[in-house]
Amino acid sequence: PESFEVIDQRFLPHEFKWFSAASLEETAIAIKDMVVRGAPLIGATAACGMAVVAHHISTNNYKDELQQAFKTLSATRPTAVNLQWALTKQYDIVKQSQTLSECQNNLYKNALKIMEEDVKQCKQIGQYGLEIIKSIYQRKKTTVNILTHCNAGWLACVDWGTATSPMYQAQLEGIPIHIWVDETRPRNQGAKLTAWELGQQGIDHTIIVDNTGGHLMQHGMVDLVIVGSDRTTRTGDVANKIGTYLKALAAFDNNIPFYAALPMSTIDWEISDGLREIPIETRSEDEIKIIDGFANNTWTQSLICPQNSKAINYGFDVTPSKFITGIITEKGVCEASEKGLLKLYPEMSNV
Amino acid sequence: PESFEVIDQRFLPHEFKWFSAASLEETAIAIKDMVVRGAPLIGATAACGMAVVAHHISTNNYKDELQQAFKTLSATRPTAVNLQWALTKQYDIVKQSQTLSECQNNLYKNALKIMEEDVKQCKQIGQYGLEIIKSIYQRKKTTVNILTHCNAGWLACVDWGTATSPMYQAQLEGIPIHIWVDETRPRNQGAKLTAWELGQQGIDHTIIVDNTGGHLMQHGMVDLVIVGSDRTTRTGDVANKIGTYLKALAAFDNNIPFYAALPMSTIDWEISDGLREIPIETRSEDEIKIIDGFANNTWTQSLICPQNSKAINYGFDVTPSKFITGIITEKGVCEASEKGLLKLYPEMSNV
Repeated sequence: PESFEVIDQRFLPHEFKWFSAASLEETAIAIKDMVVRGAPLIGATAACGMAVVAHHISTNNYKDELQQAFKTLSATRPTAVNLQWALTKQYDIVKQSQTLSECQNNLYKNALKIMEEDVKQCKQIGQYGLEIIKSIYQRKKTTVNILTHCNAGWLACVDWGTATSPMYQAQLEGIPIHIWVDETRPRNQGAKLTAWELGQQGIDHTIIVDNTGGHLMQHGMVDLVIVGSDRTTRTGDVANKIGTYLKALAAFDNNIPFYAALPMSTIDWEISDGLREIPIETRSEDEIKIIDGFANNTWTQSLICPQNSKAINYGFDVTPSKFITGIITEKGVCEASEKGLLKLYPEMSNV
Repeated sequence: PESFEVIDQRFLPHEFKWFSAASLEETAIAIKDMVVRGAPLIGATAACGMAVVAHHISTNNYKDELQQAFKTLSATRPTAVNLQWALTKQYDIVKQSQTLSECQNNLYKNALKIMEEDVKQCKQIGQYGLEIIKSIYQRKKTTVNILTHCNAGWLACVDWGTATSPMYQAQLEGIPIHIWVDETRPRNQGAKLTAWELGQQGIDHTIIVDNTGGHLMQHGMVDLVIVGSDRTTRTGDVANKIGTYLKALAAFDNNIPFYAALPMSTIDWEISDGLREIPIETRSEDEIKIIDGFANNTWTQSLICPQNSKAINYGFDVTPSKFITGIITEKGVCEASEKGLLKLYPEMSNV
């Protein structure tokens, strides 16, 4: 393909725009500047980027050029392992190819396959997660209140989402649900994206500041927490948007089930200690100090602290497996442990 | 007095303005609209308001008018108990007075006394809290990293602050400290007020989003947490700005000392169960959906979520005493329990 298009999430919820990427540079910008975000979508975008880069190559030197693309895209964001997973799949195709046109064809086909698989896996995650919501509803008989952090919705994936997929399946089944949407500072993916996405789907939701979840849980106002993940260790530690760990602690303290929903591509089978081994991205302090909002129908950047104060912006944190009730994958629901994950993925026991 | 003046905290850190209150209405606005905030300062402001209202009375009916003022000011904000404490002290003076001029004099004198006592108590809190910082420094020998939530600084009091007072005392002693400032959504009292206040005092600090504290604690980057309180039960449960509970959970999980610093006026001796008995204020959803920042040298309100999404804005949460290492008061440091508090305040054992 000449190019590919993605929703430019930087302009939601106030403007709906497409972003077109026709080169390595544009693909790298899409990922680095968070035109796209969310572990599965980052992977799919990188896969499409490789196919587009290959399409524009005319030299015999294509393997070198694509190795360069592989390296450049690998370096765009450090925490989400899906990026490496998708790029490695694509780069394996490059290495195995005999001719440029074979390489181009296979990169394109594989990018499509990655996207199709993502849709299928997210749907399956939703079906397994639905059972959890259903059993709470059968006990409670009234609206099930689900808290989520950041956006692990269809905007973060190709369709359905991970954390949101069980919610959409519950809606299809007619189970009454209400979602507590953590605004998710500093980039407000909850307030901007999850709220918009749930609104588009007609799902009842309430935005809260990230400080509020503990209070709601103390007062019986949360029945279930479902979050996504950017990287999960083989032992079930979950890296996700900064602040996830605090919600897991509160859920644990109040005996509220806390699940992470993720496809296999999010699992990093090579690491066992999330706190020590998962690299945590540090982003610009301006994302904290200057907030993006809509004033007088225009995107406006406003300073919300003293100009001279420093800020530090860690993108993710790691929730140790002991605070996680279970992991929902496309293969089923398991305990957040090596034993649990290997039951779903026995083929990984020798990795 | 004709009127009294307070710093208008709504304009910090970008503009420094005074707010003058010369009537009941203006005093009520100052408290309700958060011109002033912070439990001790709310109390002092209400006390001054009563004196100013008395000053303008010329009828013999002054007791009725002041009862009305007492009721109006009592209803301005529900969570901080200092408001009721200060107003009850002032209203007792009204009830006991024989003449209007005696009443006016005594209300004025007592307002001054409340302020003087607040300064003295905050200083004492600082001296007791200093010992905690000092002992960490003696063990660690390098900069002591202290996390705080919201603003319990001199802006929240008459001087010194509660949570910040030990920091200022440490600075005077030459102990190197660095403060992690939770921005404290939705009103950003951390990013706007604490960062400004610490900057004015030349104390090294870094603003973080409220989601970040857990990650820092997991990685050994926080030595101590000190927060203020809006109401503390006789059993040591602490109501404070929403989100405090989440930080206490993370401190507990990572074995980091977590202290609440507060004067006796913050203790509500009549209640024992913070979660059930402390009323939690719900404020406007606009404080979440629309953010106040400085753009092009002008205060600008911008919408940060879909217009049609709901939000809910609880102002405080309650941290159960079991997660609190200790309470720092003007009488010393004690365990967060009835036994601990009664050791410092034996005179309250029969309340």
